[in-house]
Amino acid sequence: MSGRAMDGAGNVEVLVEVIARKVARQLQLAPLEGVGSDPGAPCDATDLTCNGCGFCATRKEGVLDTMVGSGAARFGAAAGGAAPRGDLASMIDHTLLKPEATREELQKVCDEARKWHFATVCVNASNIPLVAKALAGSGVKPIAVVGFPLGAMTGTAKAFEAREAVRNGAREIDMVVNIGAMKSRDYGTVLDDICRVVTASKPYPVKVILETAGLTQDEKVIGCALSKAAGAAFVKTSTGFGPGGATVEDVQLMRRIVGEELGVKASGGVRTTEDAQRMMAAGADRIGASASVAIVTGGTSNASY
Amino acid sequence: MSGRAMDGAGNVEVLVEVIARKVARQLQLAPLEGVGSDPGAPCDATDLTCNGCGFCATRKEGVLDTMVGSGAARFGAAAGGAAPRGDLASMIDHTLLKPEATREELQKVCDEARKWHFATVCVNASNIPLVAKALAGSGVKPIAVVGFPLGAMTGTAKAFEAREAVRNGAREIDMVVNIGAMKSRDYGTVLDDICRVVTASKPYPVKVILETAGLTQDEKVIGCALSKAAGAAFVKTSTGFGPGGATVEDVQLMRRIVGEELGVKASGGVRTTEDAQRMMAAGADRIGASASVAIVTGGTSNASY
Repeated sequence: MSGRAMDGAGNVEVLVEVIARKVARQLQLAPLEGVGSDPGAPCDATDLTCNGCGFCATRKEGVLDTMVGSGAARFGAAAGGAAPRGDLASMIDHTLLKPEATREELQKVCDEARKWHFATVCVNASNIPLVAKALAGSGVKPIAVVGFPLGAMTGTAKAFEAREAVRNGAREIDMVVNIGAMKSRDYGTVLDDICRVVTASKPYPVKVILETAGLTQDEKVIGCALSKAAGAAFVKTSTGFGPGGATVEDVQLMRRIVGEELGVKASGGVRTTEDAQRMMAAGADRIGASASVAIVTGGTSNASY
Repeated sequence: MSGRAMDGAGNVEVLVEVIARKVARQLQLAPLEGVGSDPGAPCDATDLTCNGCGFCATRKEGVLDTMVGSGAARFGAAAGGAAPRGDLASMIDHTLLKPEATREELQKVCDEARKWHFATVCVNASNIPLVAKALAGSGVKPIAVVGFPLGAMTGTAKAFEAREAVRNGAREIDMVVNIGAMKSRDYGTVLDDICRVVTASKPYPVKVILETAGLTQDEKVIGCALSKAAGAAFVKTSTGFGPGGATVEDVQLMRRIVGEELGVKASGGVRTTEDAQRMMAAGADRIGASASVAIVTGGTSNASY
């Protein structure tokens, strides 16, 4: 495929090879059959052509962005005997939020995230130092949850928690909205709360967990609008500790309200490949899950938040 | 009873009158039949004698302490047509911790606490300003929960949250222990976490929520010991959001480990007078409940945390 222009159906084929090589490298496997034979050779592509080195995902990040931008919404890859769904893995926040999580369990989650190349690892704030260290150099980012899971701390305390988490290595912040203020129609407090965390987390993105299962339709709409107004990067459905998880209807609604400028994260009860695919089809571009390995391998998991 | 020495059985009788008068005053009722006829007269007791003014509970707090110290463990009172179990009410932390609690619900809980003279009102930290205002002058103290309910924030963030809550009017702090550190045998972190909150909350007392239902026997013992070592005022069984609530066995164990110098608070699943009495018989001297009115009236409640 060397030298072929990245247009039309060729995009997907190129990406399959790029990602397959990247996965193989991360798994320290030999080059796969049918993939360019010189994975170590430098990429000299100066435009949207490719010499097949297979490293453009790391050496030419813009190429991937261009592919995505030109319509390549889903990619596939196969490495070794496993069947990783690379398109999903890169959109998954691998999550371990149960309060009794031990250091060993946290390390295991980080190892899995490295192996499968999940987008992030999402943990409680006191675990960020351990996770940041475990993920160093992997490209997988640590997420700290803030005001979690009730969202009923003050905005000041949430901001303090977020800032400290960033100092400790968090690169994304998932905060819980002030649900009581929302229910009391105190939208000023809801907004101020988010603004404080967004400011404290700069330059890193903030996701606002609405805990949609406990909100009315109007409250979901308002929560999305206030999150966007406050400068959040994502809206997110659920904590996994509340009255329910992500639904297709909620994800569709959230995407409709925030448009394409913000992300939508579906979390809570997403346990299989099919669950994740339904959420993505509904508009989610990030999945929060503890069953992440099952999701990318098509297996089953009894992992829970 | 004027002038009678406070010894033996007389203690209880005096306390009944003192408390009945106090309740009547708070309910703005006329003096009760059989209770001293001049409630407004100043108390001139200079030792453990009483002129029957009925205000020694506020004017001579040491008298009550002495009574309790001399064995008066339970008191009774009756005001108006209701049948409050005054002994229970004064040991109840009236609790509203659900994240969707509205201002109206918080105000209602404060009104109930004033009416029934519960020890405290226990709420999430963002609700402390409202609750402190609603309880002003009532003698009912606001409690803020901290690191709630997972206990998985950093110790620094918990301390910040506690200090801010105290500034906002909290007069007791109920914090959640770092359960993950406990499970990882990282007792240094567990201790440091509690110490930080105790220091940040001074001069007000800190209760340490162990979430006993998720701990082994050894972990419960260690949690009690570390709480005592760190200068906490109470150990407390449960958040109400965890895997289980207070049990007689856990309360007995906690009392045995902390001795008489610390309090033991039973919380989670305490919904009836009988529940509360079982906990007190097991060694609890504080009850955390949302069904507090049902507990003191012998009624039923569908209130939940």
